[in-house]
Amino acid sequence: MKIKKAVVLFSGGLDSTTALCWAMDQGYDCAAVSFDYGQRHRKENLCARRIAAALGVKLYEIKLDFPWLGVSSLVDDKKGLPELRLSKIGRGGEIPSTYVPGRNLVFASIGVSLADSIGAAAVVMGPNVIDYSGYPDCRPEFYRALEKAVVAGTRQGASGKKIKLLTPLIRLSKKEIIELAVRLAAPLRHSWSCYAGGAAPCGRCDSCKLRAKGFKDAGMKDPARGFTF
Amino acid sequence: MKIKKAVVLFSGGLDSTTALCWAMDQGYDCAAVSFDYGQRHRKENLCARRIAAALGVKLYEIKLDFPWLGVSSLVDDKKGLPELRLSKIGRGGEIPSTYVPGRNLVFASIGVSLADSIGAAAVVMGPNVIDYSGYPDCRPEFYRALEKAVVAGTRQGASGKKIKLLTPLIRLSKKEIIELAVRLAAPLRHSWSCYAGGAAPCGRCDSCKLRAKGFKDAGMKDPARGFTF
Repeated sequence: MKIKKAVVLFSGGLDSTTALCWAMDQGYDCAAVSFDYGQRHRKENLCARRIAAALGVKLYEIKLDFPWLGVSSLVDDKKGLPELRLSKIGRGGEIPSTYVPGRNLVFASIGVSLADSIGAAAVVMGPNVIDYSGYPDCRPEFYRALEKAVVAGTRQGASGKKIKLLTPLIRLSKKEIIELAVRLAAPLRHSWSCYAGGAAPCGRCDSCKLRAKGFKDAGMKDPARGFTF
Repeated sequence: MKIKKAVVLFSGGLDSTTALCWAMDQGYDCAAVSFDYGQRHRKENLCARRIAAALGVKLYEIKLDFPWLGVSSLVDDKKGLPELRLSKIGRGGEIPSTYVPGRNLVFASIGVSLADSIGAAAVVMGPNVIDYSGYPDCRPEFYRALEKAVVAGTRQGASGKKIKLLTPLIRLSKKEIIELAVRLAAPLRHSWSCYAGGAAPCGRCDSCKLRAKGFKDAGMKDPARGFTF
């Protein structure tokens, strides 16, 4: 049997590290893609490099320089980061200031470009809607619609070979993602989730809080705790 | 009445120059985006700059460095360019070697990212299916599907303000595009269509042939003939 290839969008965070290990566990021959889009810090990119090397996965590091992304507090470090109220998790509502316009659409499209170049059968991503439904580009209906566009607009799609968009974590809670990561022996000790760029995770931003809650709910210690560069 | 903004994907070629002038004529306040993705030459980018300046339109020049695009003969100049048989125009069939995997998906996504940042109501593009239906990412069904994904996956879409994907030329023949350009007083004399990168257009590549046929069918002289840098 021919081994199927997959492109994995890979930020070096908890979710995409789990998604990458999931794709490898499914038997895909994986190529990973990380993005430097001017986010507050490059730590997640360094983590992505370290984890890809540890897993023996080829990593494409793509730099995107879009001058308009400064509207996001995840890019413009003069904007304050929002502080999540955990009681609001999963309730949707307002889009947080960390939303980067069109980010997952652009990332997925670039993944599809690579997939259509190398003949990969899938693009695997780690978006998640349960724990954090504020981002419109983390919703399942977005990925379902995009998959149809990908069928219509690619060489593979036009010749009857669908490129699937796989989002294995989309309906899992952070606790369930961590449990999956542990089952897959994902190297979470190297993963970076914090939005800020300190020597160690800040513990206060949305991403740190969600991660901490996930480990607490799973009854585990975060192996990346005390992680420094 | 508030003037609506549009983002126009703008290569500096005949089609996107016409699309830009169409959007301005529709009353949109336009921002243009051009891409340097490693194509054989930068002439179309220089033309884009010249035309945007002539029209007084802000131009974002975006550089994309995707190492996998060398699979396309439009990027790898060691690959030969195909020679189009005009008798095959409009018949679809094989995807030419100039296909750049996922290109229009990536371009449209980046346009959507800008549109969602600046609150633009539309992304305008110049793909065309009639004269040249070999590219899967020039088909109307691709844009219809992508528009649904954009509604689901953007801040504006999530708040009930749809970002439209407008492809005003998609069903026009090259002759009709040229006639529209003339009606709109589009500065075609500055536009570049040739795939090769010579001092003047080669006259032999697919793009040159389609352009020449368009002007011939419209009974006009190409104002960019003899165009040199």
